[in-house]
Amino acid sequence: MTEQGGFNDHVARVDLSSGEVRYEGIDEEDARKYIGGRGLGVKYVFDQGPDVDPMGPDNLLAFMNGPLTGTQAPMSGRIAVCTKSPLTGTVTDSHHGGWSGARLKWAGFDGLLFEGKAEHPTYAYVEDGEVELRDASHITEWGVHDAIDELESEVDGQVGKNLSVMAIGPAGENGVRYACIVNEDDRASGRGGTGAVMGSKNLKAVVVKSGTKMPKPANPETFTEGYQQAMQLIRESDVTAPNEGGLSLYGTNVLMNLTEEMDGLPTRNGRYTSTHSEAEADPSEPNIDAEKVSGENVRENILVDEPTCHSCPVACKKETEVTYERKGEEMNVRGESYEYESAFALGPNSMNDDRDSIAVMIDMCNQLGMDTIETGNMLAMAMEMTEQGKLDDLGEGIEWGDVEHMMDVMEDIANQESELGELLAKGAERVADEVGAHENKLSVKGQTIPAYDPRAMKGMGIGYATSNRGACHLRGYTPSAEILGLPEKVDPREWEGKGELCALFQDMHAISDSFDICKFNAFAEGIEEYVLQYNGMTGLDVTEDELMETGDRIYTLERYYNNLAGFDGSDDTLPGRFLEGDEAVPGQGASEGQLCELDEMKDEYYARRKWVDGVVPDERLEELGIDIGPGTGVSTGDSPAPADD
Amino acid sequence: MTEQGGFNDHVARVDLSSGEVRYEGIDEEDARKYIGGRGLGVKYVFDQGPDVDPMGPDNLLAFMNGPLTGTQAPMSGRIAVCTKSPLTGTVTDSHHGGWSGARLKWAGFDGLLFEGKAEHPTYAYVEDGEVELRDASHITEWGVHDAIDELESEVDGQVGKNLSVMAIGPAGENGVRYACIVNEDDRASGRGGTGAVMGSKNLKAVVVKSGTKMPKPANPETFTEGYQQAMQLIRESDVTAPNEGGLSLYGTNVLMNLTEEMDGLPTRNGRYTSTHSEAEADPSEPNIDAEKVSGENVRENILVDEPTCHSCPVACKKETEVTYERKGEEMNVRGESYEYESAFALGPNSMNDDRDSIAVMIDMCNQLGMDTIETGNMLAMAMEMTEQGKLDDLGEGIEWGDVEHMMDVMEDIANQESELGELLAKGAERVADEVGAHENKLSVKGQTIPAYDPRAMKGMGIGYATSNRGACHLRGYTPSAEILGLPEKVDPREWEGKGELCALFQDMHAISDSFDICKFNAFAEGIEEYVLQYNGMTGLDVTEDELMETGDRIYTLERYYNNLAGFDGSDDTLPGRFLEGDEAVPGQGASEGQLCELDEMKDEYYARRKWVDGVVPDERLEELGIDIGPGTGVSTGDSPAPADD
Repeated sequence: MTEQGGFNDHVARVDLSSGEVRYEGIDEEDARKYIGGRGLGVKYVFDQGPDVDPMGPDNLLAFMNGPLTGTQAPMSGRIAVCTKSPLTGTVTDSHHGGWSGARLKWAGFDGLLFEGKAEHPTYAYVEDGEVELRDASHITEWGVHDAIDELESEVDGQVGKNLSVMAIGPAGENGVRYACIVNEDDRASGRGGTGAVMGSKNLKAVVVKSGTKMPKPANPETFTEGYQQAMQLIRESDVTAPNEGGLSLYGTNVLMNLTEEMDGLPTRNGRYTSTHSEAEADPSEPNIDAEKVSGENVRENILVDEPTCHSCPVACKKETEVTYERKGEEMNVRGESYEYESAFALGPNSMNDDRDSIAVMIDMCNQLGMDTIETGNMLAMAMEMTEQGKLDDLGEGIEWGDVEHMMDVMEDIANQESELGELLAKGAERVADEVGAHENKLSVKGQTIPAYDPRAMKGMGIGYATSNRGACHLRGYTPSAEILGLPEKVDPREWEGKGELCALFQDMHAISDSFDICKFNAFAEGIEEYVLQYNGMTGLDVTEDELMETGDRIYTLERYYNNLAGFDGSDDTLPGRFLEGDEAVPGQGASEGQLCELDEMKDEYYARRKWVDGVVPDERLEELGIDIGPGTGVSTGDSPAPADD
Repeated sequence: MTEQGGFNDHVARVDLSSGEVRYEGIDEEDARKYIGGRGLGVKYVFDQGPDVDPMGPDNLLAFMNGPLTGTQAPMSGRIAVCTKSPLTGTVTDSHHGGWSGARLKWAGFDGLLFEGKAEHPTYAYVEDGEVELRDASHITEWGVHDAIDELESEVDGQVGKNLSVMAIGPAGENGVRYACIVNEDDRASGRGGTGAVMGSKNLKAVVVKSGTKMPKPANPETFTEGYQQAMQLIRESDVTAPNEGGLSLYGTNVLMNLTEEMDGLPTRNGRYTSTHSEAEADPSEPNIDAEKVSGENVRENILVDEPTCHSCPVACKKETEVTYERKGEEMNVRGESYEYESAFALGPNSMNDDRDSIAVMIDMCNQLGMDTIETGNMLAMAMEMTEQGKLDDLGEGIEWGDVEHMMDVMEDIANQESELGELLAKGAERVADEVGAHENKLSVKGQTIPAYDPRAMKGMGIGYATSNRGACHLRGYTPSAEILGLPEKVDPREWEGKGELCALFQDMHAISDSFDICKFNAFAEGIEEYVLQYNGMTGLDVTEDELMETGDRIYTLERYYNNLAGFDGSDDTLPGRFLEGDEAVPGQGASEGQLCELDEMKDEYYARRKWVDGVVPDERLEELGIDIGPGTGVSTGDSPAPADD
């Protein structure tokens, strides 16, 4: 193990079935081709083969940090969880912030690969280059916060001081397909059901004690040049500038008022594009106001602290505290993840503008271990289905904005208490299939959309459709250009050029996700700063063009995996709501009458990617130097089999 | 050599007489007691014995970085040069910024100790853990900028990219007692004549090629906590906030208008306290206006860039460019050190408010290798002496504000071209002795005052008097409280409490100088951030109280050295101008009628230090754990011998 160069070159492969832990190096060529973090994690998953059952023992669950994780590079506190998703059947990677990535690195690891299934509930304890499997039977079915408290005292550490705990809650243990992994109480690898994969392996938690193996830059001169340039740009950005930029002042939820104003906030299960246009078009109760759950409102009323992730000057985490009465009991709820996405899904999309209830529901999701986006959207879908009588067989359903009931159903889903809970735990796609509710689902490849209406922001339309992990804003964050004007302002309702723009953002994020640094860097930094920090840390001598191609390579490897798992261009689509004539945006807002010109953008996008109808041709694999993995044994010449998951 | 913990534990001891280079570790107890940088450097000088001839081969010239140098700690690009001063006869330490400290660290060194005297002009080349002595005969008497250019091409490096050159100019070679060492063209270890010591050893330059030995924190968790806390405070400070704070916008010269306004800017050889009160009190020509040479004026008119030192978010360096005609020839002068102190000494104190001429003279000082403060003040003293006819025997003298002549005399001093040049090269104290001009000198222990009038800011009065390296603002920067209100505003013209305040600042700076990080940190950070970063980097477990005591220990060791070299409380005094009734501040400004209540403050100060009339008693040495060095063989019970230098 070398301690220099940003690669500890130390990966633990843990067979949970046998209890065996093997320590191995990272293949140098793979590291060069896929960087680390997301890229390398996806490569490990790829090598395991694309037809594994996501909830079976053969699926690989990789916790990966990258060459910049845990260094002084700005916002380098990220870690990627890569696996085959039980929600989408695609490969997925889901990152969380906080300190666990840095601590894992300092404990001597670049990655932990979990295979198999433990006989009994287990947690992994990581300290000073060693991984130990320990019994977790006593905390089975415990909520995440409680489990963390217990583990904290067991290993004599302190979260927020020298310890990270990444844990699942009952949702993960009970196979909720959008169960997440929660880190340090409030950060989550939220999307794609990584928590369900962890639960299927009987792995309750990964506990990391901080160590001293901080990586040194191989070339400090280059690294500090990149680092200082990056910091300068972060300070100068209207978005990221510490204590000034919107993200620093209000966190991600700075977007609530912005999307409401530009008429692109999915409201009432994505039928409307803002709470105002909903109220105009449909004056019947309830009427709500997004401002009440905005970052500005949160800051003014319930903000108590602004903690940061490792090495972050922005501090987008906004710690809130509310007092809330539920079932006659008063609760005091403190948390640091009142994020825009959570607030949208549990708020306007569910016709709820009770600010404090959202803080409570986010905390419940974290305790239960469920993705807030998917949970909120599932509830919104259920509300629409209730309205249409489609849930009549399963009890009373849920009324729009019925907060009390939303909380009850959330617990029901996580604990699988009723038929309704069991149904909704399966995710939008399967619910639509089982109940015949395809027009109610907001999902792409099984994962529901985040908080940007693709009729109002066309870049998000092509982004959702071509995302390799189902509908997602974080694969190619075009709102950077469409809302924030970074790197330059583009018309959100214009489709032309969005295929190209989307692919560019996808490649940039594939790089930063592989480093693994926060995407918010991209509001300030460019490829130049990426190259300087990457080369400075690793000692490599990569050019800007080479690094951009690496982004393309990583994105294409993921797509190739998905092709092998049965996906093609026909899966690169959007919910009918956003495409069909009679579903054009109602109301009189800025997006009125808009639909999403998806087919036009797909042509542009595929041309840029050199894919054929969503499938990576052999020539492209060759050009990018992507090998057919040992586990696949499949040539892309074959027509892909249909998606089986 | 360990690469962790902030100590490379690698010092090169270079005997220039024999050419032998020995590599040695750092004594652990010394490191614990004196940290590194200034503290450890002074200890090395102390161990050499206090009665060496400053310009003789036995004097030690130590280039020391500290445990934070070259790390990601904010503003950690400093290096200390420690030696016995030929200007003051005290121990001295003089720091410069830029990148040489970081590069020396990355090349594998915590310190370079030069002893003896080379037979012929020599430079030291440092690369990857090795020091090599090379011939420098071909660049003898070359100006600093020219020498750097030549060395750059010789060693195939690039200053500003991967190379640092610390060099002396003709002033150092010719024994000007305030010759300095210039780093990377524009950063200087300016004060105390370190360049003359270097010249006396026939050492023309130290050239450092950047390496890869960047230190890793022993405890990354603690280090990053301290680092992030520090960055947060720096960003929030009105003084240091990047692109907002006064220091970041205008550099150190932000102080010109501030001291002018608060009536504390030494003007016309320190007789007046602002250019406005000078003009009122003495309407005869020339009348000048400090605003013309202020940081604001510089920024508006001649700023071309704002580079930074290693790991600095503030960027106080203000790069300027002027076109100037001298002796019929037009010059284009670019430089990055239009500092407040240089601007005061070559400006208002010399009755000069020609902005561009100051840029030219600063560049000349850098090229010649002379301290800008001492040079400007020597010229001001000579102007006052000229006015009084005291230089009549040596030609025409210099008229107030005669810029052309100032430039000529500067070259005369550096090159020792005339009797006037030879005289002024000796420094204020010796000039006063030789010509009988004690009332014209602004010096304390032979070094002249910087840009704060001690009648207007009483803290600077006790600070100049008790500074261990002669009059100096950087031992205890009380203007932080007296002008900037940091950590809290105190009345500059009140003397009570200033003894305590001064000692507190002195201890804090002794710590940061030993780390070695820039003092500007102290406008934002406090002892808490110091402790976190220090412990995090070294793995020590020092408390705040212990660290403060370490500051006291370092300061007291210096004082003890000076006691042994012949200094006592009678040397802790000020120029008569600031103490005597008929010299109270003239004019009608805010400081009108003020004198400096030095004796009262000295009582308070000595009580805080537990010194007896400026001498460290044995008990205090014991309390602080200061050993009598091997080279001294002297007990403090002896009454100190009179200063011989």
